[in-house]
Amino acid sequence: MQVKASVLMGLNEPWTTEIIEIDEPKSNEVKVKMAFSGMCHSDEHLRTGDISQDPQVLEFLSGRNTMFPIIGGHEGSGIVESVGPNVTGLKAGDHVAVSFVPSCGKCEYCASGRQYICDLGASTLAGPMISDGTWRHTLNGENLNRMAQLGTFSEYIVVHEASLVRIEPWYDLRAAALISCGISTGFGSAVNRGNVRPGDVVAVIGCGGVGSGAIQGAVHAGARAVIAIDLEPSKVERAKQIGATHGASSALEAAFSFMGELTSGKNCDVVILTPGVLTGELIEEARSITAKGGTIVATAIAPYHQNDVKLNLFGLSMFNQELKGTVFGSESPRVQIPRLLKLHSEGKLMIDELVTTEYSLDEVQQGYQDMYSGKNVRGVVRFD
Amino acid sequence: MQVKASVLMGLNEPWTTEIIEIDEPKSNEVKVKMAFSGMCHSDEHLRTGDISQDPQVLEFLSGRNTMFPIIGGHEGSGIVESVGPNVTGLKAGDHVAVSFVPSCGKCEYCASGRQYICDLGASTLAGPMISDGTWRHTLNGENLNRMAQLGTFSEYIVVHEASLVRIEPWYDLRAAALISCGISTGFGSAVNRGNVRPGDVVAVIGCGGVGSGAIQGAVHAGARAVIAIDLEPSKVERAKQIGATHGASSALEAAFSFMGELTSGKNCDVVILTPGVLTGELIEEARSITAKGGTIVATAIAPYHQNDVKLNLFGLSMFNQELKGTVFGSESPRVQIPRLLKLHSEGKLMIDELVTTEYSLDEVQQGYQDMYSGKNVRGVVRFD
Repeated sequence: MQVKASVLMGLNEPWTTEIIEIDEPKSNEVKVKMAFSGMCHSDEHLRTGDISQDPQVLEFLSGRNTMFPIIGGHEGSGIVESVGPNVTGLKAGDHVAVSFVPSCGKCEYCASGRQYICDLGASTLAGPMISDGTWRHTLNGENLNRMAQLGTFSEYIVVHEASLVRIEPWYDLRAAALISCGISTGFGSAVNRGNVRPGDVVAVIGCGGVGSGAIQGAVHAGARAVIAIDLEPSKVERAKQIGATHGASSALEAAFSFMGELTSGKNCDVVILTPGVLTGELIEEARSITAKGGTIVATAIAPYHQNDVKLNLFGLSMFNQELKGTVFGSESPRVQIPRLLKLHSEGKLMIDELVTTEYSLDEVQQGYQDMYSGKNVRGVVRFD
Repeated sequence: MQVKASVLMGLNEPWTTEIIEIDEPKSNEVKVKMAFSGMCHSDEHLRTGDISQDPQVLEFLSGRNTMFPIIGGHEGSGIVESVGPNVTGLKAGDHVAVSFVPSCGKCEYCASGRQYICDLGASTLAGPMISDGTWRHTLNGENLNRMAQLGTFSEYIVVHEASLVRIEPWYDLRAAALISCGISTGFGSAVNRGNVRPGDVVAVIGCGGVGSGAIQGAVHAGARAVIAIDLEPSKVERAKQIGATHGASSALEAAFSFMGELTSGKNCDVVILTPGVLTGELIEEARSITAKGGTIVATAIAPYHQNDVKLNLFGLSMFNQELKGTVFGSESPRVQIPRLLKLHSEGKLMIDELVTTEYSLDEVQQGYQDMYSGKNVRGVVRFD
């Protein structure tokens, strides 16, 4: 069938709307009519090349040496339109959230409760379908990759069932779209990976969509203080509206103003890094406000080829600190998405307050420009 | 009283034996007649400047802006000679191991089972006594600092009771000296900080004294394979004698030879860094052989002012990996030292096999030269 999708034709090219052709779902695949798609910073990472993989790696994984052209989008929600053969867990009419980490339920990682690092994740940034290594999406006869095996900037998507999480039909589909990646990742960064405990002091560096999830995760976990750190004053203000108790424009500003008194000179128990782009020098900046025995959580995406980091290893060892990377907030999508939807439905998780603008599919490029200019904490594509 | 001690007069100066004057123990202080002192690499870090603190920090902590002159040594065992007022946990004749991390038993960290990061540790690299901020040791009238509040390269030491761990008199005092820092640190790096589980594959990079403890910790925790990595072939051979199952000269060599088959391409569950000096590029080297969801433990001392690290943050996040610093193997000295002594006394922990040479107090300089030339896995000072 022919559908409209927002596509990147190459590195640093703008988002453009194209009429693409998608095939019917084959074995273990599902076609979903999209309702909402979040506009996550990670899709922009694709455009700017931060997450471009080595051509050799891509060649090995997919037989072609580029990620482009690619349909963007990896947060979203919708309603199952049809299912291919051998799909047992989903049927037409089911409501679903997508997940940028597929979970097969059977590999060593899934079987040990770590579905966020399912072995199928190896294909996330490669192109073809998980099911059989071929493509279902084409533009003028050329195969189209899809961001994170999803490509939610599209009226309909055909994806492997491992990339979908069934949700109850009474949950809000717009909230589901935002919970499907950013909010879950941030929330889990605090609750699971940072293991925030009642009475902790937590700092969140970068207060966009993911940071907003981290702030709320810290609040839910009982933090006695949550410090929102962002260069953009409006984001600090919004962070305070969803539970942050303190704000600063940088870790150093926090350190030299209120942190000494707030923590009796002990610094923060947990520091969570959720900036738009994670750069190497932020690690030592975060460590410098981390307590003895404390934890730094690296949530944000750093450029794929960046290996240079500032980090004082003497301090890390002598203060028994730790730096933990996290994907999807180190929680299984099939656990976290329904759990956070329930919290949202009970009014205990603020998501709607974060949505600054709804865009049409044709406005994706505009949406990201608004993100850069600070107008937008969370932009959402609404499909009609 | 006048005693002999091995002293560093300044940065890059050789170890020299001096006749020093020590005062009687004051309140909460204890005088110990030393039996053995381990020759740990960390004392050499003192000589080479790797752990030199900022003059301003020292001035703030101690009122003088240099660590020199300083009595070396921070591993050791001995017999209590006399106690000062208000010492209730020790009496003359008690056998003790020293601990380079003091533990007060009362601060937030001690009270929560983390005596290895006791608040008294702030004074470890400063000079004066913990008890009252004055000095008990002098050389020609000049105050002497002591490595890690100890200075075990001395016939007698006067230290705060928080720096001593009472041990049963039937335990071997030479083993106690080596357990008091290096073996405990290595063992705990695997068991506590790395949390090695039965069936894990563990790599230990750097197979000297601390690495030997890490290898044995991994074996005790049930690792199915322990990969000993060291540039020095004799250290790899010795590692295999104490439980390592595989050996290599570098992480890359291990990766390109047997690791693919050994781990089915998944890499190591835990990688422990115990080289003589921890340099920044070793972090990414370790990460490159770490499994998805795996742990890198940074145990070794890195130069105090080094902030440049190679580390791929994209990989750390997307593979949900973690880099954990550790001090004293993240276990309380009062727990770990008696526990490992018991294992040693039952023949389940190899320590004597690691001692290549015993030195007299006058031979400290020679002992470190032997360490550099690879002659020596563990050197020990025997006091007669």
